[in-house]
Amino acid sequence: MADEINLLVTLNSGYLDPLKTMLYSVHVNNPDERFRLWLLHASLTEAEVASVRQLTTAFGWALSNERVATDFAAGVPLIKRYPKEMYFRLLSGQILPTTVKRVIYLDPDLLVINPLRPLWTVDLQGHLLAAAVHRGVTGIMDGVNQLRLGTTTSYFNSGVMVMDLDQARAKIRLHDIIATIQKYESDLILPDQDILNFLYGADILGIPEEVWNYDTRKYLSYQTRSLNQHEIHWVMANTAIIHYCGTPKPWELASDSKFTGLFLHYQRLQQRLVARLNRD
Amino acid sequence: MADEINLLVTLNSGYLDPLKTMLYSVHVNNPDERFRLWLLHASLTEAEVASVRQLTTAFGWALSNERVATDFAAGVPLIKRYPKEMYFRLLSGQILPTTVKRVIYLDPDLLVINPLRPLWTVDLQGHLLAAAVHRGVTGIMDGVNQLRLGTTTSYFNSGVMVMDLDQARAKIRLHDIIATIQKYESDLILPDQDILNFLYGADILGIPEEVWNYDTRKYLSYQTRSLNQHEIHWVMANTAIIHYCGTPKPWELASDSKFTGLFLHYQRLQQRLVARLNRD
Repeated sequence: MADEINLLVTLNSGYLDPLKTMLYSVHVNNPDERFRLWLLHASLTEAEVASVRQLTTAFGWALSNERVATDFAAGVPLIKRYPKEMYFRLLSGQILPTTVKRVIYLDPDLLVINPLRPLWTVDLQGHLLAAAVHRGVTGIMDGVNQLRLGTTTSYFNSGVMVMDLDQARAKIRLHDIIATIQKYESDLILPDQDILNFLYGADILGIPEEVWNYDTRKYLSYQTRSLNQHEIHWVMANTAIIHYCGTPKPWELASDSKFTGLFLHYQRLQQRLVARLNRD
Repeated sequence: MADEINLLVTLNSGYLDPLKTMLYSVHVNNPDERFRLWLLHASLTEAEVASVRQLTTAFGWALSNERVATDFAAGVPLIKRYPKEMYFRLLSGQILPTTVKRVIYLDPDLLVINPLRPLWTVDLQGHLLAAAVHRGVTGIMDGVNQLRLGTTTSYFNSGVMVMDLDQARAKIRLHDIIATIQKYESDLILPDQDILNFLYGADILGIPEEVWNYDTRKYLSYQTRSLNQHEIHWVMANTAIIHYCGTPKPWELASDSKFTGLFLHYQRLQQRLVARLNRD
Protein backbone atom coordinates (compact mmCIF):
# COMPACT_ATOMS: atom_id res chain seq x y z
CA MET A 1 0.00 0.00 0.00
CA ALA A 2 1.32 3.44 -0.90
CA ASP A 3 2.50 5.66 1.96
CA GLU A 4 0.52 8.56 3.36
CA ILE A 5 1.17 11.92 1.70
CA ASN A 6 1.71 14.92 3.99
CA LEU A 7 0.05 18.07 2.70
CA LEU A 8 0.91 21.36 4.37
CA VAL A 9 -1.25 24.47 4.19
CA THR A 10 -0.92 27.72 6.12
CA LEU A 11 -3.60 30.34 6.13
CA ASN A 12 -5.84 32.75 7.93
CA SER A 13 -9.62 32.81 7.56
CA GLY A 14 -9.49 34.99 4.42
CA TYR A 15 -8.56 32.02 2.25
CA LEU A 16 -10.74 29.37 3.86
CA ASP A 17 -13.14 28.88 0.95
CA PRO A 18 -10.40 28.70 -1.74
CA LEU A 19 -8.54 26.26 0.55
CA LYS A 20 -11.56 23.97 0.63
CA THR A 21 -11.90 24.13 -3.14
CA MET A 22 -8.20 23.33 -3.55
CA LEU A 23 -8.46 20.39 -1.12
CA TYR A 24 -11.55 19.11 -2.93
CA SER A 25 -9.60 19.13 -6.21
CA VAL A 26 -6.77 17.16 -4.57
CA HIS A 27 -9.27 14.54 -3.44
CA VAL A 28 -11.12 14.22 -6.76
CA ASN A 29 -7.89 13.73 -8.67
CA ASN A 30 -6.17 11.48 -6.12
CA PRO A 31 -9.01 9.26 -4.92
CA ASP A 32 -6.81 6.28 -4.01
CA GLU A 33 -4.24 8.21 -1.97
CA ARG A 34 -4.15 8.57 1.78
CA PHE A 35 -3.41 12.14 2.82
CA ARG A 36 -2.62 13.81 6.10
CA LEU A 37 -3.39 17.51 6.07
CA TRP A 38 -1.22 19.68 8.29
CA LEU A 39 -3.26 22.82 8.90
CA LEU A 40 -0.91 25.49 10.25
CA HIS A 41 -2.55 28.68 11.42
CA ALA A 42 -2.47 31.32 14.11
CA SER A 43 -6.05 32.52 14.20
CA LEU A 44 -8.62 30.11 12.74
CA THR A 45 -11.64 29.67 14.99
CA GLU A 46 -12.74 26.24 16.20
CA ALA A 47 -15.69 26.42 13.83
CA GLU A 48 -13.39 27.18 10.91
CA VAL A 49 -11.11 24.27 11.74
CA ALA A 50 -14.21 22.06 12.12
CA SER A 51 -15.36 23.09 8.66
CA VAL A 52 -12.04 21.89 7.21
CA ARG A 53 -12.26 18.69 9.25
CA GLN A 54 -15.73 18.04 7.85
CA LEU A 55 -14.17 17.85 4.39
CA THR A 56 -11.06 15.85 5.28
CA THR A 57 -13.27 13.34 7.10
CA ALA A 58 -15.51 13.04 4.04
CA PHE A 59 -12.38 12.40 1.94
CA GLY A 60 -11.05 9.79 4.39
CA TRP A 61 -7.98 11.91 5.18
CA ALA A 62 -6.26 12.57 8.49
CA LEU A 63 -6.11 16.14 9.75
CA SER A 64 -3.58 17.62 12.14
CA ASN A 65 -4.71 20.97 13.41
CA GLU A 66 -1.53 22.87 14.31
CA ARG A 67 -2.45 26.11 15.94
CA VAL A 68 0.73 28.11 16.32
CA ALA A 69 1.02 30.01 19.61
CA THR A 70 0.65 33.72 19.17
CA ASP A 71 4.10 34.35 20.64
CA PHE A 72 5.74 32.07 18.10
CA ALA A 73 7.88 34.18 15.84
CA ALA A 74 6.91 37.14 17.98
CA GLY A 75 10.18 38.74 16.98
CA VAL A 76 9.44 38.56 13.24
CA PRO A 77 8.85 42.08 12.00
CA LEU A 78 5.52 42.08 10.23
CA ILE A 79 5.39 43.75 6.87
CA LYS A 80 2.15 45.56 6.27
CA ARG A 81 -0.40 43.79 4.03
CA TYR A 82 1.21 40.41 4.74
CA PRO A 83 -0.06 38.10 7.45
CA LYS A 84 2.26 36.26 9.79
CA GLU A 85 0.98 32.92 8.45
CA MET A 86 3.01 33.31 5.31
CA TYR A 87 6.20 32.55 7.25
CA PHE A 88 4.85 29.30 8.66
CA ARG A 89 5.74 27.40 5.51
CA LEU A 90 9.41 28.34 5.88
CA LEU A 91 9.35 27.49 9.57
CA SER A 92 7.32 24.29 9.23
CA GLY A 93 10.37 22.16 10.11
CA GLN A 94 10.40 23.78 13.55
CA ILE A 95 6.63 23.66 13.97
CA LEU A 96 5.76 20.11 12.85
CA PRO A 97 6.67 16.99 14.86
CA THR A 98 10.15 15.68 14.11
CA THR A 99 8.58 12.42 12.92
CA VAL A 100 7.38 14.29 9.84
CA LYS A 101 10.15 14.09 7.27
CA ARG A 102 8.63 15.43 4.07
CA VAL A 103 5.67 17.63 3.14
CA ILE A 104 4.12 19.03 0.00
CA TYR A 105 3.23 22.66 0.67
CA LEU A 106 0.35 24.04 -1.42
CA ASP A 107 -1.04 27.57 -1.66
CA PRO A 108 -4.83 27.75 -1.36
CA ASP A 109 -5.26 29.59 -4.69
CA LEU A 110 -4.61 26.60 -6.90
CA LEU A 111 -6.27 23.48 -8.28
CA VAL A 112 -4.80 19.99 -8.43
CA ILE A 113 -6.09 18.36 -11.62
CA ASN A 114 -3.85 15.28 -11.93
CA PRO A 115 -2.11 12.86 -9.53
CA LEU A 116 0.32 14.26 -6.94
CA ARG A 117 2.30 11.06 -6.28
CA PRO A 118 5.10 11.87 -8.75
CA LEU A 119 5.64 15.12 -6.85
CA TRP A 120 5.52 13.39 -3.47
CA THR A 121 8.18 10.89 -4.56
CA VAL A 122 10.46 13.37 -6.36
CA ASP A 123 14.16 12.74 -5.76
CA LEU A 124 15.37 15.94 -4.06
CA GLN A 125 18.97 14.96 -4.83
CA GLY A 126 20.08 16.32 -1.48
CA HIS A 127 18.34 19.67 -1.86
CA LEU A 128 16.40 21.41 0.90
CA LEU A 129 13.29 21.59 -1.21
CA ALA A 130 11.88 21.47 -4.74
CA ALA A 131 9.99 24.35 -6.35
CA ALA A 132 9.27 25.78 -9.79
CA VAL A 133 10.42 28.97 -11.46
CA HIS A 134 7.86 31.14 -13.23
CA ARG A 135 9.86 32.12 -16.26
CA GLY A 136 7.34 33.55 -18.69
CA VAL A 137 8.52 33.43 -22.31
CA THR A 138 12.08 34.57 -21.83
CA GLY A 139 13.07 34.14 -18.21
CA ILE A 140 13.84 37.85 -18.01
CA MET A 141 12.28 38.10 -14.54
CA ASP A 142 15.00 35.80 -13.25
CA GLY A 143 17.54 38.51 -14.08
CA VAL A 144 15.42 41.30 -12.63
CA ASN A 145 14.98 39.41 -9.38
CA GLN A 146 18.65 38.39 -9.24
CA LEU A 147 19.56 42.06 -9.53
CA ARG A 148 16.96 43.07 -6.97
CA LEU A 149 17.91 40.39 -4.43
CA GLY A 150 21.61 40.08 -5.29
CA THR A 151 21.22 36.35 -5.99
CA THR A 152 22.65 34.29 -8.82
CA THR A 153 20.02 31.55 -8.83
CA SER A 154 16.64 31.34 -10.52
CA TYR A 155 13.70 33.00 -8.77
CA PHE A 156 11.41 30.26 -7.45
CA ASN A 157 7.69 30.52 -6.79
CA SER A 158 6.86 29.51 -3.21
CA GLY A 159 3.28 28.38 -3.91
CA VAL A 160 4.16 24.71 -4.46
CA MET A 161 7.07 23.14 -2.60
CA VAL A 162 8.26 19.67 -1.61
CA MET A 163 10.29 20.14 1.57
CA ASP A 164 12.78 17.86 3.30
CA LEU A 165 11.89 18.80 6.86
CA ASP A 166 15.02 17.41 8.51
CA GLN A 167 17.06 19.68 6.29
CA ALA A 168 14.67 22.54 6.99
CA ARG A 169 15.20 21.94 10.73
CA ALA A 170 18.95 22.13 10.22
CA LYS A 171 19.11 25.02 7.77
CA ILE A 172 16.15 27.36 8.11
CA ARG A 173 16.67 29.68 11.08
CA LEU A 174 14.20 32.18 12.45
CA HIS A 175 16.96 34.67 13.26
CA ASP A 176 18.19 34.60 9.63
CA ILE A 177 14.67 35.40 8.47
CA ILE A 178 14.32 38.23 11.00
CA ALA A 179 17.70 39.69 10.07
CA THR A 180 16.87 39.57 6.37
CA ILE A 181 13.53 41.28 6.82
CA GLN A 182 15.09 44.01 8.97
CA LYS A 183 17.89 44.64 6.50
CA TYR A 184 15.94 44.47 3.23
CA GLU A 185 12.37 45.35 4.17
CA SER A 186 12.05 48.12 1.61
CA ASP A 187 13.26 45.83 -1.20
CA LEU A 188 10.98 42.89 -0.43
CA ILE A 189 8.07 42.70 -2.85
CA LEU A 190 6.69 39.26 -1.95
CA PRO A 191 8.26 38.95 1.48
CA ASP A 192 8.27 35.22 2.13
CA GLN A 193 9.01 34.30 -1.48
CA ASP A 194 11.84 36.83 -1.61
CA ILE A 195 13.29 35.44 1.62
CA LEU A 196 12.99 31.89 0.32
CA ASN A 197 14.99 32.87 -2.75
CA PHE A 198 17.43 35.19 -1.00
CA LEU A 199 18.37 32.82 1.81
CA TYR A 200 17.78 29.37 0.34
CA GLY A 201 17.62 29.78 -3.46
CA ALA A 202 20.90 27.94 -4.01
CA ASP A 203 19.52 24.90 -2.20
CA ILE A 204 16.35 24.48 -4.26
CA LEU A 205 15.78 21.80 -6.88
CA GLY A 206 13.91 23.16 -9.89
CA ILE A 207 10.88 21.23 -11.10
CA PRO A 208 8.93 21.97 -14.31
CA GLU A 209 6.47 24.80 -13.79
CA GLU A 210 4.25 23.59 -16.66
CA VAL A 211 3.54 20.43 -14.67
CA TRP A 212 3.76 21.41 -11.00
CA ASN A 213 3.05 25.13 -10.78
CA TYR A 214 1.27 26.28 -13.94
CA ASP A 215 0.75 30.05 -13.81
CA THR A 216 -2.75 30.60 -15.23
CA ARG A 217 -1.81 34.08 -16.41
CA LYS A 218 0.71 32.64 -18.84
CA TYR A 219 -1.21 30.29 -21.13
CA LEU A 220 0.06 32.03 -24.24
CA SER A 221 3.64 32.23 -22.94
CA TYR A 222 3.72 28.50 -22.26
CA GLN A 223 2.30 27.81 -25.69
CA THR A 224 4.77 30.13 -27.42
CA ARG A 225 7.76 28.84 -25.50
CA SER A 226 6.88 25.22 -26.29
CA LEU A 227 6.31 25.97 -30.00
CA ASN A 228 2.59 25.32 -29.52
CA GLN A 229 3.09 21.96 -27.85
CA HIS A 230 1.69 23.04 -24.48
CA GLU A 231 -1.82 24.00 -25.58
CA ILE A 232 -4.97 23.20 -23.66
CA HIS A 233 -5.02 19.47 -24.48
CA TRP A 234 -1.45 19.07 -23.25
CA VAL A 235 -2.20 21.07 -20.11
CA MET A 236 -5.26 19.08 -19.12
CA ALA A 237 -3.40 15.79 -19.69
CA ASN A 238 -0.03 16.71 -18.14
CA THR A 239 -0.33 19.61 -15.74
CA ALA A 240 -0.95 18.51 -12.17
CA ILE A 241 -1.22 21.88 -10.43
CA ILE A 242 -2.67 25.05 -11.89
CA HIS A 243 -1.90 28.15 -9.84
CA TYR A 244 -4.11 31.24 -10.00
CA CYS A 245 -1.27 33.68 -9.40
CA GLY A 246 -1.81 37.39 -9.09
CA THR A 247 -5.14 39.16 -9.35
CA PRO A 248 -7.99 39.00 -10.06
CA LYS A 249 -8.53 35.69 -8.29
CA PRO A 250 -10.93 33.32 -10.11
CA TRP A 251 -13.62 33.78 -7.46
CA GLU A 252 -13.59 37.52 -8.16
CA LEU A 253 -15.97 38.82 -10.80
CA ALA A 254 -13.22 40.45 -12.90
CA SER A 255 -11.52 37.09 -13.51
CA ASP A 256 -12.23 35.71 -16.99
CA SER A 257 -9.25 33.60 -18.06
CA LYS A 258 -9.17 30.24 -19.78
CA PHE A 259 -9.02 28.62 -16.34
CA THR A 260 -11.59 30.69 -14.42
CA GLY A 261 -14.47 28.35 -15.26
CA LEU A 262 -12.65 25.26 -14.02
CA PHE A 263 -11.97 26.85 -10.62
CA LEU A 264 -15.57 28.03 -10.30
CA HIS A 265 -16.85 24.57 -11.16
CA TYR A 266 -14.66 22.98 -8.48
CA GLN A 267 -15.76 25.65 -6.01
CA ARG A 268 -19.36 24.79 -6.79
CA LEU A 269 -18.83 21.04 -6.42
CA GLN A 270 -17.10 21.65 -3.08
CA GLN A 271 -19.88 23.89 -1.81
CA ARG A 272 -22.49 21.37 -2.97
CA LEU A 273 -20.68 18.61 -1.06
CA VAL A 274 -20.63 20.77 2.09
CA ALA A 275 -24.35 21.43 1.70
CA ARG A 276 -24.97 17.66 1.43
CA LEU A 277 -22.82 16.94 4.49
CA ASN A 278 -24.64 19.60 6.49
CA ARG A 279 -27.99 18.18 5.40
CA ASP A 280 -27.26 14.54 6.23
CA MET B 1 -37.85 10.03 -2.37
CA ALA B 2 -37.50 11.76 -5.73
CA ASP B 3 -38.61 9.81 -8.80
CA GLU B 4 -36.23 8.17 -11.25
CA ILE B 5 -35.12 10.35 -14.15
CA ASN B 6 -35.22 8.82 -17.62
CA LEU B 7 -32.24 9.81 -19.76
CA LEU B 8 -32.34 8.99 -23.46
CA VAL B 9 -29.26 8.78 -25.66
CA THR B 10 -28.98 7.53 -29.24
CA LEU B 11 -25.67 6.88 -30.88
CA ASN B 12 -23.36 4.71 -32.88
CA SER B 13 -19.88 3.71 -31.77
CA GLY B 14 -18.28 6.92 -33.08
CA TYR B 15 -19.52 8.89 -30.06
CA LEU B 16 -19.01 6.28 -27.37
CA ASP B 17 -16.19 8.07 -25.51
CA PRO B 18 -17.89 11.51 -25.49
CA LEU B 19 -21.08 9.75 -24.34
CA LYS B 20 -19.24 8.31 -21.34
CA THR B 21 -17.76 11.70 -20.49
CA MET B 22 -21.20 13.29 -20.73
CA LEU B 23 -22.75 10.59 -18.51
CA TYR B 24 -19.93 11.00 -16.00
CA SER B 25 -20.68 14.73 -15.79
CA VAL B 26 -24.38 13.98 -15.20
CA HIS B 27 -23.43 11.72 -12.31
CA VAL B 28 -20.92 14.08 -10.68
CA ASN B 29 -23.39 16.95 -10.72
CA ASN B 30 -26.47 14.92 -9.75
CA PRO B 31 -25.10 12.51 -7.14
CA ASP B 32 -28.37 12.09 -5.24
CA GLU B 33 -30.57 11.37 -8.26
CA ARG B 34 -31.62 7.96 -9.51
CA PHE B 35 -31.32 7.71 -13.29
CA ARG B 36 -32.37 5.16 -15.85
CA LEU B 37 -30.38 5.39 -19.05
CA TRP B 38 -32.19 4.38 -22.21
CA LEU B 39 -29.45 3.47 -24.67
CA LEU B 40 -31.00 3.42 -28.16
CA HIS B 41 -28.75 2.15 -30.90
CA ALA B 42 -28.68 0.02 -34.02
CA SER B 43 -25.11 -1.19 -34.12
CA LEU B 44 -23.24 -1.06 -30.79
CA THR B 45 -21.40 -4.30 -30.04
CA GLU B 46 -21.99 -6.23 -26.83
CA ALA B 47 -18.60 -5.07 -25.57
CA GLU B 48 -19.50 -1.44 -26.25
CA VAL B 49 -22.82 -1.77 -24.40
CA ALA B 50 -20.97 -3.52 -21.55
CA SER B 51 -18.54 -0.58 -21.34
CA VAL B 52 -21.49 1.79 -20.86
CA ARG B 53 -23.04 -0.57 -18.31
CA GLN B 54 -19.78 -0.61 -16.34
CA LEU B 55 -20.21 3.14 -15.81
CA THR B 56 -23.95 3.17 -15.07
CA THR B 57 -23.41 0.38 -12.54
CA ALA B 58 -20.63 2.38 -10.87
CA PHE B 59 -23.02 5.35 -10.70
CA GLY B 60 -25.84 3.24 -9.26
CA TRP B 61 -28.04 3.85 -12.29
CA ALA B 62 -30.30 1.50 -14.21
CA LEU B 63 -29.54 0.85 -17.86
CA SER B 64 -31.97 -0.28 -20.52
CA ASN B 65 -30.16 -1.45 -23.61
CA GLU B 66 -32.57 -0.89 -26.51
CA ARG B 67 -31.09 -2.30 -29.63
CA VAL B 68 -33.32 -1.29 -32.50
CA ALA B 69 -33.86 -3.99 -35.13
CA THR B 70 -32.10 -3.25 -38.35
CA ASP B 71 -35.36 -3.29 -40.27
CA PHE B 72 -36.91 -0.64 -38.04
CA ALA B 73 -37.41 2.47 -40.08
CA ALA B 74 -36.16 0.49 -43.04
CA GLY B 75 -38.15 2.82 -45.22
CA VAL B 76 -36.46 5.97 -43.95
CA PRO B 77 -34.32 7.33 -46.76
CA LEU B 78 -30.84 7.81 -45.41
CA ILE B 79 -29.18 11.10 -46.08
CA LYS B 80 -25.48 10.74 -46.69
CA ARG B 81 -23.18 11.66 -43.81
CA TYR B 82 -25.99 11.18 -41.29
CA PRO B 83 -26.49 7.91 -39.43
CA LYS B 84 -29.89 6.33 -38.95
CA GLU B 85 -29.52 6.70 -35.18
CA MET B 86 -30.27 10.39 -35.37
CA TYR B 87 -33.94 9.64 -36.04
CA PHE B 88 -34.31 7.44 -32.98
CA ARG B 89 -34.83 10.44 -30.71
CA LEU B 90 -37.87 11.52 -32.73
CA LEU B 91 -39.21 7.98 -32.81
CA SER B 92 -38.43 7.15 -29.19
CA GLY B 93 -42.14 7.17 -28.29
CA GLN B 94 -42.62 4.22 -30.63
CA ILE B 95 -39.42 2.45 -29.54
CA LEU B 96 -39.58 2.72 -25.72
CA PRO B 97 -42.10 0.77 -23.57
CA THR B 98 -45.42 2.55 -23.20
CA THR B 99 -44.82 2.67 -19.45
CA VAL B 100 -42.19 5.35 -20.07
CA LYS B 101 -43.96 8.69 -20.09
CA ARG B 102 -41.20 11.28 -20.12
CA VAL B 103 -37.53 11.37 -21.08
CA ILE B 104 -34.72 13.88 -21.19
CA TYR B 105 -32.85 13.41 -24.45
CA LEU B 106 -29.18 14.48 -24.40
CA ASP B 107 -26.62 14.66 -27.21
CA PRO B 108 -23.28 13.04 -26.34
CA ASP B 109 -21.26 16.20 -27.13
CA LEU B 110 -22.26 18.10 -24.01
CA LEU B 111 -21.48 18.39 -20.31
CA VAL B 112 -23.99 18.62 -17.48
CA ILE B 113 -22.46 20.91 -14.83
CA ASN B 114 -25.45 21.60 -12.56
CA PRO B 115 -28.56 19.71 -11.39
CA LEU B 116 -30.99 18.35 -14.02
CA ARG B 117 -34.08 18.04 -11.78
CA PRO B 118 -35.55 21.44 -12.74
CA LEU B 119 -35.44 20.29 -16.37
CA TRP B 120 -36.94 16.90 -15.54
CA THR B 121 -39.88 18.54 -13.73
CA VAL B 122 -40.48 21.33 -16.24
CA ASP B 123 -44.16 22.01 -16.90
CA LEU B 124 -44.59 21.28 -20.62
CA GLN B 125 -47.92 23.15 -20.57
CA GLY B 126 -49.41 20.61 -22.93
CA HIS B 127 -46.58 20.78 -25.46
CA LEU B 128 -45.05 17.74 -27.16
CA LEU B 129 -41.59 18.63 -25.92
CA ALA B 130 -39.35 21.35 -24.58
CA ALA B 131 -36.17 22.54 -26.30
CA ALA B 132 -34.02 25.65 -26.60
CA VAL B 133 -33.43 28.02 -29.49
CA HIS B 134 -29.86 28.99 -30.34
CA ARG B 135 -30.37 32.64 -31.13
CA GLY B 136 -26.92 34.14 -31.12
CA VAL B 137 -26.92 37.89 -30.49
CA THR B 138 -29.84 38.89 -32.68
CA GLY B 139 -31.96 35.85 -33.40
CA ILE B 140 -31.38 36.40 -37.12
CA MET B 141 -30.94 32.66 -37.73
CA ASP B 142 -34.55 32.15 -36.72
CA GLY B 143 -35.58 34.17 -39.75
CA VAL B 144 -33.15 32.42 -42.06
CA ASN B 145 -34.39 29.02 -40.96
CA GLN B 146 -38.03 30.08 -41.11
CA LEU B 147 -37.48 31.14 -44.71
CA ARG B 148 -35.59 27.96 -45.50
CA LEU B 149 -38.13 25.62 -43.93
CA GLY B 150 -41.27 27.69 -44.49
CA THR B 151 -42.01 27.73 -40.75
CA THR B 152 -43.18 30.60 -38.57
CA THR B 153 -41.79 29.33 -35.27
CA SER B 154 -38.38 29.66 -33.70
CA TYR B 155 -35.69 27.20 -34.79
CA PHE B 156 -35.02 24.81 -31.91
CA ASN B 157 -31.81 22.90 -31.25
CA SER B 158 -32.50 19.18 -30.92
CA GLY B 159 -29.50 18.38 -28.67
CA VAL B 160 -31.43 18.75 -25.41
CA MET B 161 -35.12 17.87 -25.22
CA VAL B 162 -37.70 16.95 -22.61
CA MET B 163 -40.25 14.79 -24.37
CA ASP B 164 -43.79 13.79 -23.41
CA LEU B 165 -43.72 10.29 -24.86
CA ASP B 166 -47.48 9.70 -24.88
CA GLN B 167 -47.84 12.79 -27.03
CA ALA B 168 -44.91 11.64 -29.15
CA ARG B 169 -46.69 8.30 -29.65
CA ALA B 170 -49.82 10.12 -30.79
CA LYS B 171 -48.22 12.82 -32.94
CA ILE B 172 -44.86 11.73 -34.33
CA ARG B 173 -45.35 9.47 -37.32
CA LEU B 174 -42.69 7.63 -39.26
CA HIS B 175 -44.50 8.17 -42.56
CA ASP B 176 -44.56 11.95 -42.00
CA ILE B 177 -40.82 11.90 -41.45
CA ILE B 178 -40.24 9.78 -44.55
CA ALA B 179 -42.45 12.01 -46.68
CA THR B 180 -40.68 15.14 -45.44
CA ILE B 181 -37.23 13.76 -46.16
CA GLN B 182 -38.28 12.66 -49.63
CA LYS B 183 -39.82 16.02 -50.45
CA TYR B 184 -37.19 18.35 -48.96
CA GLU B 185 -33.99 16.30 -48.96
CA SER B 186 -31.96 18.90 -50.81
CA ASP B 187 -33.02 21.66 -48.38
CA LEU B 188 -32.27 19.77 -45.19
CA ILE B 189 -29.03 20.91 -43.58
CA LEU B 190 -29.27 19.16 -40.20
CA PRO B 191 -31.82 16.52 -41.20
CA ASP B 192 -33.32 15.45 -37.90
CA GLN B 193 -33.24 18.93 -36.41
CA ASP B 194 -34.82 20.40 -39.53
CA ILE B 195 -37.53 17.75 -39.43
CA LEU B 196 -38.15 18.41 -35.75
CA ASN B 197 -38.68 22.08 -36.50
CA PHE B 198 -40.56 21.63 -39.76
CA LEU B 199 -43.05 19.06 -38.53
CA TYR B 200 -43.30 19.79 -34.81
CA GLY B 201 -41.89 23.29 -34.23
CA ALA B 202 -45.29 24.74 -33.35
CA ASP B 203 -45.67 22.18 -30.55
CA ILE B 204 -42.38 22.91 -28.76
CA LEU B 205 -42.05 24.78 -25.49
CA GLY B 206 -39.04 27.07 -25.50
CA ILE B 207 -36.66 26.86 -22.55
CA PRO B 208 -33.72 29.22 -21.91
CA GLU B 209 -30.69 28.21 -23.94
CA GLU B 210 -28.32 29.94 -21.49
CA VAL B 211 -29.40 27.44 -18.83
CA TRP B 212 -30.31 24.24 -20.68
CA ASN B 213 -28.43 24.25 -23.97
CA TYR B 214 -25.52 26.68 -23.77
CA ASP B 215 -23.74 26.85 -27.13
CA THR B 216 -20.02 26.97 -26.28
CA ARG B 217 -19.26 28.83 -29.51
CA LYS B 218 -21.32 31.81 -28.33
CA TYR B 219 -19.78 32.94 -25.04
CA LEU B 220 -19.36 36.49 -26.29
CA SER B 221 -22.84 36.59 -27.83
CA TYR B 222 -24.45 35.53 -24.57
CA GLN B 223 -22.41 38.11 -22.69
CA THR B 224 -23.27 40.88 -25.13
CA ARG B 225 -26.95 40.04 -25.29
CA SER B 226 -27.23 39.99 -21.48
CA LEU B 227 -25.35 43.30 -21.13
CA ASN B 228 -22.43 41.44 -19.54
CA GLN B 229 -24.56 39.66 -16.97
CA HIS B 230 -23.93 36.18 -18.36
CA GLU B 231 -20.17 36.06 -17.97
CA ILE B 232 -18.22 33.05 -16.77
CA HIS B 233 -19.27 33.34 -13.09
CA TRP B 234 -22.94 33.43 -14.07
CA VAL B 235 -22.47 30.50 -16.45
CA MET B 236 -20.76 28.24 -13.94
CA ALA B 237 -23.42 29.04 -11.32
CA ASN B 238 -26.52 28.91 -13.52
CA THR B 239 -25.93 26.94 -16.69
CA ALA B 240 -26.82 23.28 -16.33
CA ILE B 241 -25.91 21.99 -19.80
CA ILE B 242 -23.06 23.22 -21.96
CA HIS B 243 -23.24 21.99 -25.54
CA TYR B 244 -20.13 21.73 -27.70
CA CYS B 245 -21.98 22.49 -30.94
CA GLY B 246 -20.25 22.48 -34.31
CA THR B 247 -16.59 21.75 -34.91
CA PRO B 248 -13.91 21.38 -33.76
CA LYS B 249 -15.13 19.13 -30.96
CA PRO B 250 -13.31 19.66 -27.63
CA TRP B 251 -11.53 16.29 -27.89
CA GLU B 252 -10.02 17.43 -31.20
CA LEU B 253 -6.66 19.18 -31.08
CA ALA B 254 -7.91 22.29 -32.88
CA SER B 255 -10.43 23.06 -30.13
CA ASP B 256 -9.28 25.85 -27.81
CA SER B 257 -12.36 27.65 -26.48
CA LYS B 258 -13.12 28.85 -22.98
CA PHE B 259 -14.85 25.51 -22.35
CA THR B 260 -12.38 23.09 -23.98
CA GLY B 261 -10.42 22.54 -20.76
CA LEU B 262 -13.50 21.65 -18.72
CA PHE B 263 -14.52 18.94 -21.20
CA LEU B 264 -11.00 17.52 -21.33
CA HIS B 265 -10.85 17.41 -17.53
CA TYR B 266 -14.16 15.50 -17.34
CA GLN B 267 -12.95 13.17 -20.08
CA ARG B 268 -9.82 12.49 -18.05
CA LEU B 269 -11.76 11.88 -14.83
CA GLN B 270 -14.05 9.48 -16.69
CA GLN B 271 -11.16 7.59 -18.26
CA ARG B 272 -9.40 7.41 -14.89
CA LEU B 273 -12.56 5.95 -13.31
CA VAL B 274 -12.77 3.32 -16.07
CA ALA B 275 -9.11 2.43 -15.51
CA ARG B 276 -9.83 1.99 -11.77
CA LEU B 277 -12.90 -0.16 -12.47
CA ASN B 278 -10.92 -2.34 -14.86
CA ARG B 279 -8.13 -2.71 -12.32
CA ASP B 280 -10.33 -3.68 -9.35
